[in-house]
Amino acid sequence: MARNTHVPADTSAPPVTAILARFVSGHASRGWSDAVEREAHRTFYNWLGCAIGAVYHEAATAALGAVRLLQPPPQATVLGSREKVDMASAALVNGITSHTFDFDDTHLKTIIHPAGPVASAVLALAEHRGASGRAVIDSLVLGIDVACRVGNTMYPDHYDRGWHITGSTGMLGAAAGCARLLGLDEKKTAMALGIAASQPVGFREQFGTMTKPFHPGGAARAGLMSALLASQGFTASERALEAPRGFVQVASDKRAWNEVTDELGERFEISFNTYKPFACGIVIHPSIDACVRLREQGITAEQVERIELRVHSLVLELTGKKEPKDGLQGKFSVYHGCAAGLLFGRAGEEEFSDAVVNDPRVVALRNKVQATVDDSIDEAAVRVAAVLTDGRRVEVCVDHAIGSLENPLTDAQLEAKFASLVVPVIGQGHADEITQHCRALASMPDIRTLTALCAA
Amino acid sequence: MARNTHVPADTSAPPVTAILARFVSGHASRGWSDAVEREAHRTFYNWLGCAIGAVYHEAATAALGAVRLLQPPPQATVLGSREKVDMASAALVNGITSHTFDFDDTHLKTIIHPAGPVASAVLALAEHRGASGRAVIDSLVLGIDVACRVGNTMYPDHYDRGWHITGSTGMLGAAAGCARLLGLDEKKTAMALGIAASQPVGFREQFGTMTKPFHPGGAARAGLMSALLASQGFTASERALEAPRGFVQVASDKRAWNEVTDELGERFEISFNTYKPFACGIVIHPSIDACVRLREQGITAEQVERIELRVHSLVLELTGKKEPKDGLQGKFSVYHGCAAGLLFGRAGEEEFSDAVVNDPRVVALRNKVQATVDDSIDEAAVRVAAVLTDGRRVEVCVDHAIGSLENPLTDAQLEAKFASLVVPVIGQGHADEITQHCRALASMPDIRTLTALCAA
Repeated sequence: MARNTHVPADTSAPPVTAILARFVSGHASRGWSDAVEREAHRTFYNWLGCAIGAVYHEAATAALGAVRLLQPPPQATVLGSREKVDMASAALVNGITSHTFDFDDTHLKTIIHPAGPVASAVLALAEHRGASGRAVIDSLVLGIDVACRVGNTMYPDHYDRGWHITGSTGMLGAAAGCARLLGLDEKKTAMALGIAASQPVGFREQFGTMTKPFHPGGAARAGLMSALLASQGFTASERALEAPRGFVQVASDKRAWNEVTDELGERFEISFNTYKPFACGIVIHPSIDACVRLREQGITAEQVERIELRVHSLVLELTGKKEPKDGLQGKFSVYHGCAAGLLFGRAGEEEFSDAVVNDPRVVALRNKVQATVDDSIDEAAVRVAAVLTDGRRVEVCVDHAIGSLENPLTDAQLEAKFASLVVPVIGQGHADEITQHCRALASMPDIRTLTALCAA
Repeated sequence: MARNTHVPADTSAPPVTAILARFVSGHASRGWSDAVEREAHRTFYNWLGCAIGAVYHEAATAALGAVRLLQPPPQATVLGSREKVDMASAALVNGITSHTFDFDDTHLKTIIHPAGPVASAVLALAEHRGASGRAVIDSLVLGIDVACRVGNTMYPDHYDRGWHITGSTGMLGAAAGCARLLGLDEKKTAMALGIAASQPVGFREQFGTMTKPFHPGGAARAGLMSALLASQGFTASERALEAPRGFVQVASDKRAWNEVTDELGERFEISFNTYKPFACGIVIHPSIDACVRLREQGITAEQVERIELRVHSLVLELTGKKEPKDGLQGKFSVYHGCAAGLLFGRAGEEEFSDAVVNDPRVVALRNKVQATVDDSIDEAAVRVAAVLTDGRRVEVCVDHAIGSLENPLTDAQLEAKFASLVVPVIGQGHADEITQHCRALASMPDIRTLTALCAA
């Protein structure tokens, strides 16, 4: 039967499915540092803003249209709307909306967007069950740890091969989080992980289509259902992740099992989560950040004769569009990003609307941006000079853009981002209330206090 | 970005996603021979019997328990029960039950069990919509063609790598069948295939657990949802199957694209579908068949001194268990299979129950079976000799076991198999009625006439 010549089987893999199951079911509630606890709150809050913000996007409308055909009972909220659907469908739709703007979180070691699959599954289940905020945070931290550790085990090979790693590890994180929330024992948690291991979602070919954000949504749904199945006695292989014909070995030639086991329960991958300040590909972020800083120095568009960028070649390769025609193209234009940064001091979803991309003031400033390739500059850095009409030259160097691990968003910046996404959907009052509640999420007795506020 | 060294990308793949979408949406209703039409009816009927037969299995109970947590509306029947659930969950559960006994159909070129994912999705959707039998058969033929053609494109590499090919091509077949049933146009059918392409289900490590039959169920569900999403305007890549980072290239090093295009619309893969006569691994079938033939020659267990088998080494490698302790182990014992064949003239699910495996008469006869390896004999053949207490020696050679393409089950045998599965669940009267209706499925105005009969 062994006709498989291309992927040598690793028959000595440690029992990582069982190890993760024991960890998820047995780790103490809030068994981590204050820093981890804070990052969990920030991760949840950032995810929630992204999900609410995209609820009127056509991808959400189409997904919800399909879900309605199932005539779902009102178990869990479609965040940002008054509609409730069954919890599995809520996990799907909220997973889709949270990733629709490409504005969510990033675990930079693996480029997994971890909250999408995990929080979407956990919150839908928690709402239906009336779980506590504490239980939600615990489930989120542990679920994200599972997804990212399995991601570390396979990255970069798994991603390079073509998997969209967010959806192809997210089902494990969602299953782990939901198993924890359900209080499944070690054995049933292993079954939940095992069932989920058969359901990776997503390939990179889908980037640029609605199926990209479907990936975290589908993973959320699959993980939640896997935990429900396990709770009812459904079985799977106890070695579903690590066996020669299990998920990891089939989907990746890199199998660094130690990434699962090293410092398990001591180092938490959510510590390495970051939040996008700008609603576009991460490679433009340093340039936008630099232009925001120019604005903060009092420089206005009217003063500018030209803006000179020196960037790594990758920046122009991925985002070199000189004349974007609409919002989506704007996300692939470093020129547009710079104009938005200087004019508005921000580059949220609104600044990537069709209207803003075609605003004459924006177009005029964009045309004054010139980019030069300099591969001595890091991919994550930029050198920007504003040459002013009075002859002055103002330079800004960004080595670590805002939103990076080295220069994370402050809580205030995260709240501003949240407001920019949420206020247009549910208004300032509700948005402020949600922000208040999210600060103290861990002490909320019943998570439905929060989800009720998220129903516009 | 190109760190992928192990799988050279094929950048010249033909547009198979679009080709299949055009075929599925545009091929004429009943645009095939009488032989294909007959095989479609046999495929459906065999699948239905397997699904009804396993409805009380613990895997079905657990799956249904999880589905009930979603409080589903009564859209489609859990076959063999009075319960209705939402159509996506019905696709899931019926897909699980149809494969639970490992007794369903096999497309021998790829060892795909094609009806599980395709018929489970199509019938659930058809019941909810009150579609005609004609529409069901059309969707089944076209859906199975899509799944098996993509399977041919990747087999054996994809399977050897560790994918359970039934679930990892079945989502495409289910999406195609449901897109056809919904009457989606070419463009939306391509989207349905594209969304489904991100959701392959299943790895071989799960064999021996409930997650094995979950694979066709999960694929059915994923395919049905993909078609519903596409119907609402959800988008995916138009090259989701064939692009370098699309499903086929990521999941298989073999990419024989001509398997999709050759004789498309002329040769139908359902023509190569076969139906298991015995509820166990296909490698034991010739030995059981030979013992059934001995019985038909009047030989009884009491007359037998010993039974000598000569078989290919693979038979003992996979099914060499000398002393099976329960029903499941019995399925991996060629010795038990022979005893059942000679004693009962059959080896359905009942003959692999714990009780029969431990029946003293069966044990006694099993102990008289001796097997010798002879690799000059084909894997699919056997030489059997019964040495009798009176000194006689009766030999039977089986080159093509009953149920193979060369020696297919007759319609009468298929009906006997169906009855053995269905009568214990819903009684003789209902079983007979269903059989009557299935003969004339294509002329049934509303498929709910049939599904109502399948509600025990």
